[in-house]
Formats: sequence, structure tokens, C-alpha cells
Amino acid sequence: VNLIGFDIGGANTKAAYIATRNGCVEQTVTASEYFPIWKHPEKLAATLKRLTRKVAMAKHLDLVAVTMTAELADAYETKREGVNRILTQVENAFPSTRILVVDVDAKLRAIEEARREPSKVAAANWAATGWLAAQLECDCVVVDVGSTTTSIIPIKNGAIAAEGKNDLEKLILGELVYTGSLRTNVAATVNVIPTAKGLTRISSELFAQSADVQLILGNISQTDYTVETPDGNGKTRAAALARLARVVCADTEMLNEAEIVHIAQYVYEAQVKQIAEALAQVCNRLKNKPNDLTVVVTGLGRNFLAHKAALQAGFAEVVDLGELVGGDVARVSTAFAVALMGASYLEGGVIRWTR
Amino acid sequence: VNLIGFDIGGANTKAAYIATRNGCVEQTVTASEYFPIWKHPEKLAATLKRLTRKVAMAKHLDLVAVTMTAELADAYETKREGVNRILTQVENAFPSTRILVVDVDAKLRAIEEARREPSKVAAANWAATGWLAAQLECDCVVVDVGSTTTSIIPIKNGAIAAEGKNDLEKLILGELVYTGSLRTNVAATVNVIPTAKGLTRISSELFAQSADVQLILGNISQTDYTVETPDGNGKTRAAALARLARVVCADTEMLNEAEIVHIAQYVYEAQVKQIAEALAQVCNRLKNKPNDLTVVVTGLGRNFLAHKAALQAGFAEVVDLGELVGGDVARVSTAFAVALMGASYLEGGVIRWTR
Repeated sequence: VNLIGFDIGGANTKAAYIATRNGCVEQTVTASEYFPIWKHPEKLAATLKRLTRKVAMAKHLDLVAVTMTAELADAYETKREGVNRILTQVENAFPSTRILVVDVDAKLRAIEEARREPSKVAAANWAATGWLAAQLECDCVVVDVGSTTTSIIPIKNGAIAAEGKNDLEKLILGELVYTGSLRTNVAATVNVIPTAKGLTRISSELFAQSADVQLILGNISQTDYTVETPDGNGKTRAAALARLARVVCADTEMLNEAEIVHIAQYVYEAQVKQIAEALAQVCNRLKNKPNDLTVVVTGLGRNFLAHKAALQAGFAEVVDLGELVGGDVARVSTAFAVALMGASYLEGGVIRWTR
Repeated sequence: VNLIGFDIGGANTKAAYIATRNGCVEQTVTASEYFPIWKHPEKLAATLKRLTRKVAMAKHLDLVAVTMTAELADAYETKREGVNRILTQVENAFPSTRILVVDVDAKLRAIEEARREPSKVAAANWAATGWLAAQLECDCVVVDVGSTTTSIIPIKNGAIAAEGKNDLEKLILGELVYTGSLRTNVAATVNVIPTAKGLTRISSELFAQSADVQLILGNISQTDYTVETPDGNGKTRAAALARLARVVCADTEMLNEAEIVHIAQYVYEAQVKQIAEALAQVCNRLKNKPNDLTVVVTGLGRNFLAHKAALQAGFAEVVDLGELVGGDVARVSTAFAVALMGASYLEGGVIRWTR
């Protein structure tokens, strides 16, 4: 079967096309587009069509499967409104293709059902990713670090053991950490920063984001920096250094490069610590010791954030999804999972997907 | 003499016109305009001219006196560039009027001097405010809470006793706290929020700002909410509640009004605590006990943030600048101080200014 899985985030829309035959994935093509939905919610359909041309070319599609987190975007008054408006855009993009929507129980629902119970399909991205990882490891914890947020998904006896059924519950339980590889405001990550002159308070503006930190530290390349810069300037290291200096109300005349790199390192470690703490919280609830469990890392930040956090939380065994399916697929593993869920639904059985 | 003092902030430009005679202020007219300089730095001159028409009508001006903090805005690569480009805009607005610029020693400098040493005039707003307060109380601490930032300015023996000479030093010493009445991102103010279901992590987006918190709590009115809303929606209480719910990835269907008010109260108290801690830090350095010193509160947040923080830090005597010069003038007390500095310079002596 041929189908596309979409992961419609607030800032990035990700697509994975897969072609399967006899229970095996024969082809995978993925793409991701920076699409800040709060700016132009009505242009989502066009974005989906553009991504489709990229990943599926003109091939016939048996199904379009969707998950979303974009309903939280402040273009929508409530999640109910967000889910419904997003589903309308999906229908506009695919008027004659069957559409299914992932729910928080990792099942696929018809679009009318999804509209009736929007809280069941809002922010169900983790359910798709968890469903995928459960096929890999019966007992593990998934750490999926995207551009904006981190999902931590416990898997027990081959089933998702997450307790939070919505974002608020997940923020409390440690299953969602609102920190990511690219879009996280540095001012929301740390309260103070140690500098040569002393511990300094910081500006509360959006002067620099995690992409600047990761670029300065060499964790991402300029081509990985797929989102807008906070000041509209370039994605060079020099521009990132200027942005980060501004966080302590300084500039590149007041602070030298080493001093700004020091700030980047501090912010980076704060991100790692946030993820490690949430991972420990989830692990405690499962009553598992870190060395009983494997951590499966995925998403753009799977190495420099997820893997590092897993080690900090005391886990010894870490599986990188990128080594199983390739880095490009691992970056959009939720969209890939959604596609696989669709293929499994259509073929009526498990689909083999690791290389 | 007739003159205008300008306080050119990053987000708001404030103007105070004063007419003085024989060492007394005879007339004061003030105005403030939301002007996010990072969006259109080239439109500052037009903004200054618009404010001038408002406060001075067509009257002849003997002087234009200026202080700025807008050089930190990310439209400028460095503060040097910011100061110079801002001064060019001031010159464009007033091609045939004498212009003087406040420096960090609370002196007025010619524009060429200011251009030569931009670090001496960058973010010197506190020096003007301190100069004003020193005429009121020989030993006091000024707490000036604006829309975006809070300045804490110690006055000792009638002179400014601030130690930090730039924003970075002030952030370290507690003389600058990057929190304010309107524009502060809630995500930069707190890391977690207690809810009925438990302590919750929060989103790192700009979903809600301090103006939403203060509006919900009744600390400001809709007309005080002079800045843009984070989601572009209205300035009603209902819209502010929806924005604040989003900070814990919820909406107004998931949380009721009382629960969101509870969040607002928590964020508000965190702001007060930040200011109180900085005030205590400044006070400790002066080796003064809180009950030896008067706190002079000014700015838009002088009551609900500055006054409350002063009480929390143990100060018993608080003077509200608004009661001396009226609330409208106290809201733009830095611009008023700049104008008074100019008048004092031209008249060659102290100007009496309290009612």
C-alpha cells in the first residue's frame, strides 16, 4: 500500500511517504517544512499538498494518516476549534483520499469521530511514536526531542504505559517537556547565567533560541537551523553569538567569543538537565531502575539532547532510532510512525520496518 | 524654557513636554506610544514628531533631551550601532533644535560626544530617574517598574549610588530586573506552576505576558494594556484567560476561571519576588537596613509591583511618585526627568517640580 503520514506541529509540518508490500516497508521518503501555523492557519492545506508532491510525487495514495499538536497554536481559541479547523484543512488538501487520525490510545479514527471527540486526537503524536518504539523494545522509554518539545514515552510489556492523556497531564508527569532543539526561548530555559563578572539575571525577550545555542556549540549545522531566527538576521555562528550576547543585555563588543560560548554551554546543560529530570520522574513512576530499561532516542535532538539526558539520568543502554532507519527518517519519526500505523491498518498486520 | 524629554525604549517611546519659568515647572504634558523599534527602526523619527505634536503642539522648543534603552533591540548588531542609528533618527526629527543626550553619570552630552562614546549613553534611563529622585530624598532607593523592565536605583547623600554602569553589570547587581508590567513573557518568569492536579511544567512559547496576568487580577485596565497581545486577539479578560491557559498547554475548556486566576496570582507573586530580591540585594550592598531607607516607586507598575515588592523586602516607608506629580507623569517619569535635566541645564539651576 502507498500512503503518507503527517505530523502537523505548530511550527513544523512533517511528512513520511511509505510504500509497503507483504508486510515490509519497501520505500520511505520524508520531508519537513517550517510552517508556523499561527501565522497562516488557512495555508495548511497548501503546505500538505506541497509536502505530498515532494514525498509521494504523483503516486496514488491509499490513505492519508494524520497526527497533530498544532491545535495548541494561539490562532485557535480552544483545542476543539484547533482540531476541527486543522481537520478541515486536511480534507481540503485530500478531498478524495481516505483520511484517518491517530488518537491517544494509538488507534486510528475516522475524521468524523475525531471531530466529535477532539480531546482524543489533540496532541496524540507521542502515541504514534510510542506505538513504533513498542515494536522495537518491549520495555523501554522513548525520548523524542523535536524542534520545540520533548516527549518521553514509557513502554511496558510491549504496550504504551504513558499515564497523561493530554498535554497538561503530561507536563505534570514529565511525559512532556516544552524544550527542543531549535525553537526554545533561552529566557524560558534559564533564570540566571554565570558570567566572569558574576551570576547575572537575564532579559525576558526572545533574543536567542536553542538553535543559536546548538549552532554555537556545533550540535547542529546551518542547514539544520530550519526555523526563523529571533532577530531576522542570518544563521551564521557570528549572528548566533550576537543573539546570545543580547540575552544578558550585552553585545559582541562587551563579551568575547569564549564568554558567549560559555553561556551557550550553560543553557545547553540546563536543557539536558530538564529532560534528564523528566526522564527520571517517568522512570520512578514505572518503578524501574535506569539499568533495567533501554532508552530509545529519536527526533532532531536525539543525540545532543536525548542521548546526553539519558546518560545523565543513569541509563546505560541507549538505542538511536537514526541507526535503524537513517537520520532523515528518525528526525520525523512521528510522521513515519503515523504512516506505519496506516499501513498496518490497511494490510491488517505488523509491518517490518527496520533496515 | 520649553523643551521635551524623550525616553526611547525598545517597545515604548515616551515624551514629556515641560515649560519652566524662574526655576519652576509651569506646565507638563506627557504622552507614550507603543513603538516596537525592532520592527521599523527607520520610523523612529516619525514617532518622535508625532509625540511632539501631541505634547508640545506647535510651540517653539529650546531643547530636545533624550535618553534611550532601544539600542539593545535586535534590529541593531551592537549597541554602538544602535546608539548611532537612534541618534540619527533624533537628528532627522529635529534638524534645527539643540539635542542633548543623558549619560550614565547623569550629565547631558552633545550628540557628537554621545556618538563617540556610545557605551556612556546606552541605557542611561536610570541615571535620569535617579537624578530626579535624589532631589526628593537624600537617602532612598528608587524602584521604577515600566512595561518591560524594572530599574532599582540607590540614592545616597543626595547622589546616585548605583554601581553598574551598563545593563550587564546592573543585571548582576540587582539594579536591573528584566520584568515589567506588560511585556514580560510568563514563560520567562516561572518554570513551573502549581495546579489542582499537581506541579506542572510550562510551555516555552510566548503564549501570555505580564499584561494578561495583571489584567486578569485587575491590576491594570484594558486601556493600560497598550502593547500588542501575544496571539493578536483582544484585550478582554476572556481573551487573557485563554492566553494564560495556553501556558500550561491547556485551554478554557480544560481549566475553569478560578484555576486560571490561580495561575495569574502565582505568576504575579513570582514577579514581585524577583523585584523584592533585587531590592534586597541593592540594599545589602549599601549596608542599609530596609527601615533606614525610603523607597520611591514610579512607572506603570509602581503600585502593584514596586510597592508590593518594597513591602515584601521589609521597607516600611514608600513614596509614590504618582502622588507628587500625578499618575500620568509618574508613568513616564524617566522622560519627565530627562526634560527636567534639560531645563535645569538651560536655566542653570535647580527646578522645582513637585506639586
